[in-house]
Parts: sequence; structure tokens; C-alpha cells
Amino acid sequence: MLAKRLAVIGLGLIGGSVARSLRASGAVGSIVGFDPDARQRTAAVELGVIDVAADSASSAVAEADLVIVAVPVLHTAEAFAAIAPALPANCVVTDVGSTKQSVLADVRRVFGELPGWYVPGHPIAGTEKSGVANSLEGLFRKHRVILTPHAQQAPEALAKVRALWELCGARVVEMEPSLHDEIFAATSHLPHLLAYSFVDTLAGIDRSGQIFSNAGGGFRDFTRIASSSPQMWHDIVRANAASVSTILAKQIAELQAMQAMIDGGRWDELKTVFERARNAREHYLTQIE
Amino acid sequence: MLAKRLAVIGLGLIGGSVARSLRASGAVGSIVGFDPDARQRTAAVELGVIDVAADSASSAVAEADLVIVAVPVLHTAEAFAAIAPALPANCVVTDVGSTKQSVLADVRRVFGELPGWYVPGHPIAGTEKSGVANSLEGLFRKHRVILTPHAQQAPEALAKVRALWELCGARVVEMEPSLHDEIFAATSHLPHLLAYSFVDTLAGIDRSGQIFSNAGGGFRDFTRIASSSPQMWHDIVRANAASVSTILAKQIAELQAMQAMIDGGRWDELKTVFERARNAREHYLTQIE
Repeated sequence: MLAKRLAVIGLGLIGGSVARSLRASGAVGSIVGFDPDARQRTAAVELGVIDVAADSASSAVAEADLVIVAVPVLHTAEAFAAIAPALPANCVVTDVGSTKQSVLADVRRVFGELPGWYVPGHPIAGTEKSGVANSLEGLFRKHRVILTPHAQQAPEALAKVRALWELCGARVVEMEPSLHDEIFAATSHLPHLLAYSFVDTLAGIDRSGQIFSNAGGGFRDFTRIASSSPQMWHDIVRANAASVSTILAKQIAELQAMQAMIDGGRWDELKTVFERARNAREHYLTQIE
Repeated sequence: MLAKRLAVIGLGLIGGSVARSLRASGAVGSIVGFDPDARQRTAAVELGVIDVAADSASSAVAEADLVIVAVPVLHTAEAFAAIAPALPANCVVTDVGSTKQSVLADVRRVFGELPGWYVPGHPIAGTEKSGVANSLEGLFRKHRVILTPHAQQAPEALAKVRALWELCGARVVEMEPSLHDEIFAATSHLPHLLAYSFVDTLAGIDRSGQIFSNAGGGFRDFTRIASSSPQMWHDIVRANAASVSTILAKQIAELQAMQAMIDGGRWDELKTVFERARNAREHYLTQIE
């Protein structure tokens, strides 16, 4: 058995999906959940995602042996501070934050050090939807989960969190938090900025109604991530600002180079960029989940 | 009956899909096709997309009463010059080019004026794949086709081309060629530039192998169009360079503004952009095909 009593702090898409997946695995006894939004708590109980809704984060964790903190990254410090006084001895805690250096800094700030029983994690899964009502049992199946263990890491805590994600059907990978943040700035945070910025650019020009109504199918796929939660992505970009700024500057420079090719009629160079990009995508496509 | 003998010049994804769709409609007698690539000609006959492969564009149209020119936009002038001497009287000709001002200029250059029997068209459909082997009977069903009729347009030619697309299950919309080019620079050409440029930016940074191999599902959708034909998109951007350059400059300016918000810690402004973009996408989503 993974845990007698699992506590989920934050009943959104990810927290709800972890609860559903672990319940389906049969490896947890009972599941208690907390969310500051009473509607999410009620929905989580009604949907059978959790057994009991606690009325505070601290009471949720009071008798738990495994805790998953699944809150927006900017609420990490607040959530850990709330559970800190009530955490039982030997309880293992993990998180699902999309940035890792900021989360580690927040946890260190709350406890004065990185506790051995805390394991930093990030499941690479999600949809543009949010809220417990959109949570899915199979959300993590065949997806990666990145763990960024730290120097004070207790090996048995790491093993338990690894087992947690494997029970959800995920594949666990370990890496340094700085590499994690660089990778996700590039592959996830930057495309969200591009998608939001692209839609906003179109919305800002004259006749934008005619423009949107004539968009084709490629437009829908390309802009899907611009329907993601503005609050969540604000939090993520803010928590990973340095890495995001670096890759965004590179992206802008590349677009400026592309515009110079178009304005200068350097068509062979433009085609070379297109070819290089297509080849890179095709080459790596088999590795993309 | 739409046509006794339909000629398709250019046996790629679009030409092949028009042939398949019109054959399925039962409204054409026979279909003759030509492509400069012998492999496409052979494949088109073997797949039953066309009845007969002609050995030149002029022989393909010699006995046709309806001609669809479905060549890369930069080959428009060449294709019209090739069929011009052999076109029978009363034959209606249309094209499928993704840009319209450049195609109209090319046709005018070949004939000295815009012939009444020529109807400019652009079906809003396609996939990132190319070639007659990827052509589909249902490709245009429930999709829009833009026609940009001109001042010399013969009404019965326009009616025939409208009927052609309606037989393919498409919905026909008419608009000015300049509006067409502005709309598709924004909704189609710009996202292709962004997708190619984004993948190329990632391919150019250190540890790009690790970066691509950790990309999530959103990455796949966002970059799908970067697998499109580099030659075709080179042609389209080149043919619509002025409109593309205008919207690309706006996009770069918006990204620079976004970077200034991140670097300046103006987080509320950043969230406002995200919210505006999400609202615009959600508002127009029902209109997107």
C-alpha cells in the first residue's frame, strides 16, 4: 500500500487527476482533500474524487502519511506554511509545480532548509481546461513526471513519490531543477506566450472579427493553449521569469531575422529555416509524448 | 452535370482531393490530370484519383470544359502560360492558390487582362502532409472556400466554380483579394512563421535533444504546422510578402512588449494580455472551422 491516508492540497485539474488515478490503483486507503474554493471541495466530494473534504489545509494533512501539494506555483509558500504545523512525523510530501527552482526556494524559506521528506515533482500532463470537474483518471498514463531531488533528500521519500507516479501510469525522470526550468521555459512556457501573444495580435487589428471567422483548422490547434488559465500561466511565467526571459529574447531575435529575410527578399535563407525546423520536429517527434 | 471532362493541373494534396471529391459527387464525366512529377501522375492513376494522366499541361486541358489549377502559388504564371494555347472556348478555369493578389497579377500578366472565364479561388483546407497519396475525398466538407471574383468576371463561370465547391461539400464565401490576403497573412501565414521559428529557436540552443525529448502534448499541437512543406510555405510567404511583413512586425512588437512586462515585473499587465487573448479565442472559437 502506497498510503493509508492521502491528502491532496489543491483540488484542481492536477490534484483531482492524481486523486482519481491513485484511487483507481487501489494503493491508497482514504483520500482527504482541501481547496480554498468551497465549490471545488464540494465538487470533488460529489464526483467521488476524494472521500472527505477538510476545512483547512492543516486539518487535511493531520493524519496523512502522503501529501500532494497541487496549488498554483505562486501559492506554494502559503500552502507549505499552512500544512507545516500539522504534518505528522514520517509523512512524505511532494508537489506538482510547473517550475522547480522557485518551488524549492519557497519550501526552503518555510522550513529554513529543504526537508528530507519533501520531494519536488512536476507531472508533464494537463489540458487547457482547469478545475476538478475536468480531472481525469488517465491523465498521467504514459506521460513523464520530472522529479528534481535535492541534497537533503531522504531516499525512502524519493522512492515513495516515484512509486506514486508509477501507480498513475507515468514514467519518472530525475533531473537538476535548473535544467528542468530551462527545458520547460523553452517547450512549454514560451509556446504559451507565443499563443497568447498571437491571438492578442490578431484581436488588436482592424476587422479582427472577419479575421477570426476565416481562420482554418491549423489555427485551432496552434492557438489551443491560448485557452489555458491566464492566472495559472501568469503564475508560471512569474515563477520562472529568468529562464522565460532568456528564451523569449532568443525567439524575438529569430523572428527579427526572419522578417529581415522577407523584407530583403532572401528567400533561400527563409526556406532553409523552414527546412531546418521541419527536420528538427520530424526528428524529435517520436520522442514527444 | 458540372463538367464532361475535368482537368486537374497539379496532382498534390489539394488537386488530388478535389478530383476525389468531384468524382464521388458523380457530377463529372472523366478526369484528366497533369503534374510535372511523373511519380505523382502514376500515383494519381493507380489510386484512381484521375482517369488519365496527360503528358503535358496543354494536352490535359485540350478537351476539358473545367480546369482546376492546383500548383504551388509561385508556379501560377508558368501553369497558366502552359495551358493558355490549348484552352477550349467556354472552358472555365479556377485555381486554389493560398494568396490571391499575386495569383491575379500572374494571370493578368499571362493573358494581358483578367479573362472572364477565370475565377480565383482558395479552399481553406489542408493538412501538414502533401502529395496525391495524402489526398482525401472529404477534405473540403464543411470547410470554407474563398472566391475573389474580379471586374471582368463572367457570371456563369463564377456560378460553375461555386457549384464545383458546393459539390465538394464546402461553403463558398466571396471577398476582395486584398482582404483575403490580409486575413490569411494573419490567420495562416503568420502562425506558420511562428511555428517554424519556434522549433528552429529550440533546435538552436544547447541541449536541444533534452529539450525536445521533454516536450509535452501541447508542444505537438502547437508545432504541427512546422511539419508543413518548406517549399510550399516559402512560396506562399514570398507571394504574400507585403501582408506577411506587416502582420509579422505587429507580432514582434507585441512580443517585445510582453518581454518588457516580464523584465519589468509588470505582472498584472501580462495577465491582462493573457485574459484578453483567451477571451478572444473563446469568443471566436465557434466560428473557427
